[in-house]
Amino acid sequence: MKSPGLDVGVLGVLPVRAAQLDSPEAVDAWLRSAGSVERSRQVGAMSRARLTSFVSLLDATTGPELLGSIDTDLATRIVGAADTAQAARWMKAIETDEAAEILRRLSNSTRDTLLDQIGGPQAEVLREVLRWPPTSVAAHMLPDVFTIPDSITAAEAEELVRTQSAQVRGRARHGALIYVTDAERRLIGFLDFQDLVLAHPDQPIAELSSQDPVWVRPLVDAEQAAQSLVDYDLAALPVIDDQRRLLGVLTADAAADIIDTEATRAAERQGGSEPLEVPYLRASPFRLWRKRIVWLLVLFAAEAYTGTVLRAFEDEMEAVVALAFFIPLLIGTGGNTGTQITTTLVRAMGTGQVRLRDLPRILAKEMSTGFLIAATMAAAAIIRAWTLGVGPEVTVTVSLTVAAIVLWASLVASVLPPLLKKCRVDPAVVSGPMIATIVDGTGLIIYFLIAHATLPQLAGL
Amino acid sequence: MKSPGLDVGVLGVLPVRAAQLDSPEAVDAWLRSAGSVERSRQVGAMSRARLTSFVSLLDATTGPELLGSIDTDLATRIVGAADTAQAARWMKAIETDEAAEILRRLSNSTRDTLLDQIGGPQAEVLREVLRWPPTSVAAHMLPDVFTIPDSITAAEAEELVRTQSAQVRGRARHGALIYVTDAERRLIGFLDFQDLVLAHPDQPIAELSSQDPVWVRPLVDAEQAAQSLVDYDLAALPVIDDQRRLLGVLTADAAADIIDTEATRAAERQGGSEPLEVPYLRASPFRLWRKRIVWLLVLFAAEAYTGTVLRAFEDEMEAVVALAFFIPLLIGTGGNTGTQITTTLVRAMGTGQVRLRDLPRILAKEMSTGFLIAATMAAAAIIRAWTLGVGPEVTVTVSLTVAAIVLWASLVASVLPPLLKKCRVDPAVVSGPMIATIVDGTGLIIYFLIAHATLPQLAGL
Repeated sequence: MKSPGLDVGVLGVLPVRAAQLDSPEAVDAWLRSAGSVERSRQVGAMSRARLTSFVSLLDATTGPELLGSIDTDLATRIVGAADTAQAARWMKAIETDEAAEILRRLSNSTRDTLLDQIGGPQAEVLREVLRWPPTSVAAHMLPDVFTIPDSITAAEAEELVRTQSAQVRGRARHGALIYVTDAERRLIGFLDFQDLVLAHPDQPIAELSSQDPVWVRPLVDAEQAAQSLVDYDLAALPVIDDQRRLLGVLTADAAADIIDTEATRAAERQGGSEPLEVPYLRASPFRLWRKRIVWLLVLFAAEAYTGTVLRAFEDEMEAVVALAFFIPLLIGTGGNTGTQITTTLVRAMGTGQVRLRDLPRILAKEMSTGFLIAATMAAAAIIRAWTLGVGPEVTVTVSLTVAAIVLWASLVASVLPPLLKKCRVDPAVVSGPMIATIVDGTGLIIYFLIAHATLPQLAGL
Repeated sequence: MKSPGLDVGVLGVLPVRAAQLDSPEAVDAWLRSAGSVERSRQVGAMSRARLTSFVSLLDATTGPELLGSIDTDLATRIVGAADTAQAARWMKAIETDEAAEILRRLSNSTRDTLLDQIGGPQAEVLREVLRWPPTSVAAHMLPDVFTIPDSITAAEAEELVRTQSAQVRGRARHGALIYVTDAERRLIGFLDFQDLVLAHPDQPIAELSSQDPVWVRPLVDAEQAAQSLVDYDLAALPVIDDQRRLLGVLTADAAADIIDTEATRAAERQGGSEPLEVPYLRASPFRLWRKRIVWLLVLFAAEAYTGTVLRAFEDEMEAVVALAFFIPLLIGTGGNTGTQITTTLVRAMGTGQVRLRDLPRILAKEMSTGFLIAATMAAAAIIRAWTLGVGPEVTVTVSLTVAAIVLWASLVASVLPPLLKKCRVDPAVVSGPMIATIVDGTGLIIYFLIAHATLPQLAGL
């Protein structure tokens, strides 16, 4: 135990700092103490020169170990900083799906050179994985799978799996499954290593294996497949072609990575930005600018419309200047109400809890909630208008407006995400800033219309 | 294969609709076709009466199967709708950690009755798990673990594990590990079932097992422990006491649930709402109102300050009414800029990529990005002011203000989340609505100060 005061640790290992990484032994000790987040942090912070000297310390064991654990962006940089022969050796030692992710990020020429250097059947398998569209589940699958026939016994299966283990990579994956297939490699069932160990040696595989495997087609969207894996609580999801032949599996590890990446993208979209696609600390100010400015300008253009609305109601504001005092408060409340709804909805849609056909239920729920919130906020608005001393007429105007804007924001915010989903647009683009922008301009129109109806001073305008 | 056109499916199983769930056989077929999301949706939509008749169809196999797969909120409802004897039988059949989650949600009296009915050593183990604080990793751990000494061979270990499998529950978990302990149950190392199958029968366990297990203390925050599990890419994280004795393990399944729940909470906080704590479709309008109204009122009170600012600058707005046209646009842009930054930062902090000590790097990055964005937005503001025809002076005021507000929002948004984290407050509470509210009032002050400095018309005010 490294220290009695510590909460989480690695038995018998002392932490190593990046600054001490000056020998292959130090790198080895560092890998034993640092998790993937810490590894990515420290390697990600290295300058180009420091990275090159660090990469030269990696060997046939530590190289693949590091590449398999850090994020793909960084793994690609390390492969780029190593010499081709060494990089090829490492790529041969890591999981096929991780190698494919790295190769996909390299330039065409680097990728081809590396694949030529890898050579043999492994390069063939990698080329095949790379041929699938990058968003398909097939592009993320592990083609190496243990397969056994269902006519043998548990003891024979153990023997067979042992002989396969030389070819089947992905050995390091915990919880890898064994698939039962027929002579044409058509999927019949599956079992896990635990079933094999706990079985009586003479038990037939047909009796041990589960018979209703959940499967997925190769071209299915990777995120959808990853969610199915979680949904059915699987260790791996088999990918089969239209002949029911097993092409490979999506592992729980790969699924977790896909879901995590997608959740980060959704969070960034929800914040009104394009997804960064690299870890935040490694995003340059120029990249941040590029990813953010698009939506800022779109929203600025849309929000500019509020200026037109206000100019149209210039006379009203000159007649009752107190109306202007409430502009930020009213549109702010509308934006807040809308943001609360879209954020909850987009998350519930992202995890599959809410679907398109739930729209009527969503609307009923949100409009009922909207009435409760509108009533509460109207009361709050009366108090605020009274403390500002703007007189009873403006108080009525403001509290009616706040209620109307809350209801309007509730409607827009509950309809927009399902609607975009229907148009096959990621509903996460309905960000807080977007809903606020939509409610701002329209909310101002509602405000001045209510003012016209309630304020005698505006009767002539 | 259920249909050739389908993308994801279960081999040899036809989907069953909730309406057809009128016999134990139908329930069995339904469970084989529906994943956990679909199960939760359909059961969650049932009326109280429908649920009771559905629960009476569950038997000793389908009851535990359903309870183990749906969300805890719903599982608790099902346990509540079943009679105590049957509920106890089901609770005995599901994983200890899942049973504990359900028991924790029941009322004290129901919990005690159920635990008495469960009885025996299992009730004792459950009572022990329930004694840990609910946010600690120990409250989420699986106490049943395979343990072997390191002095035996692989063949002997297989034999030992087989005899343990009667007592050790959690058998259904794929990828469960086998822990190597000494005579005092002190943790030495671990291996997985795959290692055991692939090993030569005579190979000693001491040679087969990994020697540097990552461990965690029982009182560590469950989310932190779950992230460590992901970080070190483990199938399970052992929980040890200060004598290094193995208390149980946090499984990858449980960790994924914890991370998922935490991500939903963070998303809801980021949308300016309190976490709902139940799936969206099952949240009543009253619950939604209660979770949302708190922050809406807080933000309303904070935003009310903008009214005070605007009244203070009433004379300026009367002198140059065009200044009012730009209020929503200027504060909107400030809010959008801030929201982009906090969302990205909060997500990066939530996944452990960014920590407190990164604050200087965050500031440097965000202020550089802020300058690029400020310059771009100032240019956009010039165009907008020109199209509104407000004259060169107001144009200068507006474009200077937009630049200043972008920089101000960047500063506030990059400092606030790490600062709250330091005060042990969840940084996710820095929602888009909150940052927008902070920037609104302060942004208006910046606006009128710049207006005073640039507009000759305001010289006397």
